[in-house]
Amino acid sequence: MDTVVISSGGLDSVVLAHKVAQERRLIRLISFDYGQRHKKELSYARLCAERLGVSFSLIDLSSVGEALHGASALTGGQDVPDGHYAEETMRITVVPNRNAIFLTIAYGIAVADGAQAVATAIHGGDHFIYPDCRPGFAQSFETMQKAALEGMADIELYTPFLHGTKADIVTEGVRLGAPFDQTWSCYKGGAIHCGRCGTCVERQEAFALAGSDDPTAYEDPDFWKKACHV
Amino acid sequence: MDTVVISSGGLDSVVLAHKVAQERRLIRLISFDYGQRHKKELSYARLCAERLGVSFSLIDLSSVGEALHGASALTGGQDVPDGHYAEETMRITVVPNRNAIFLTIAYGIAVADGAQAVATAIHGGDHFIYPDCRPGFAQSFETMQKAALEGMADIELYTPFLHGTKADIVTEGVRLGAPFDQTWSCYKGGAIHCGRCGTCVERQEAFALAGSDDPTAYEDPDFWKKACHV
Repeated sequence: MDTVVISSGGLDSVVLAHKVAQERRLIRLISFDYGQRHKKELSYARLCAERLGVSFSLIDLSSVGEALHGASALTGGQDVPDGHYAEETMRITVVPNRNAIFLTIAYGIAVADGAQAVATAIHGGDHFIYPDCRPGFAQSFETMQKAALEGMADIELYTPFLHGTKADIVTEGVRLGAPFDQTWSCYKGGAIHCGRCGTCVERQEAFALAGSDDPTAYEDPDFWKKACHV
Repeated sequence: MDTVVISSGGLDSVVLAHKVAQERRLIRLISFDYGQRHKKELSYARLCAERLGVSFSLIDLSSVGEALHGASALTGGQDVPDGHYAEETMRITVVPNRNAIFLTIAYGIAVADGAQAVATAIHGGDHFIYPDCRPGFAQSFETMQKAALEGMADIELYTPFLHGTKADIVTEGVRLGAPFDQTWSCYKGGAIHCGRCGTCVERQEAFALAGSDDPTAYEDPDFWKKACHV
């Protein structure tokens, strides 16, 4: 089944790309530049497409980021919080309607490609704060797309991690031989992962919960244990 | 009710902007540049925002247009057909998933604005060819957005023309005093409307069906009568 994958270059979506490449037919990776502070993640998405030998589309949504005028930390309005992904610190990292925007664009490209599926790495670990990562969203999105493309295309929304945790994704990545050291999670975009921001803490916790070695180099490799009360 | 309006600068969406400005609270016009052949329409959208004294956001989606690589006449792949909006000639003017893409971005901006509604000028005259102009799409889109923004925002999709024809929109525009001569429909983007392309024919037919004078200057003002068998 020809499938396009939305990939940020982060751990979740790079594992997804490797899963699709091995189990389906990966035809394109799509990344989005929405004015996030650093573009480091995106270079890992491009690298993933090159490694898997598929087309890469970088969609420039910086004018959307500008229109959102400081509504989110990821687009420059506020400082990125340190610490565990607690509800309050995560709330400000939400770009309003991000997944719906990414998915509708990916569906448009999938129609042009003649693809049968769009894959996204939304997962259970994000359910408690991001409504657009929940099963109810995924189901209603697929229903909406069936109506929007009626008579033109019938494209599945493939969400294999929807009911899993980030630790499950690490376990799946180990099974698939995905190169974790060629993925990027840190919100701060330094030379190496900071180890302190919400995504760095979540990443380290996921490897620990999966019982897997974490090949990532962190500036502060011990902070996460305090944040997670380990 | 604070409402953002998606407006191309065409007749339908300029009438919609005037309707919202008079009957609700218009706070922003949003237009999209998706690599369409000419930008003439967009200048009329900006003019409409200035006339109504509201913010204007031009969202640059040209990289989406590029990714769609010639899938549609509007983005450069094929010639624009002359004649009435018959099914075959209209099919190639479809940009895949266009309305869903525009609406998800407008919803994201509406969240940032604290708006309660997003308005779009989709109408019954487009139902037979564009699935993303039909009531089933509008309903499923609103349902999807409620899931995507659960706990963050509850934003209505306002579609006052959904069950009407383009002639009904002309009638409504007359009632509202909307300046039809400051709207643009022609796909060809010349100095004045060509009179021959699908949208020019449809525009002239709508004024005739509404029994209203058409203030538009056309290069070929009689072609539409043949196309519509008048």
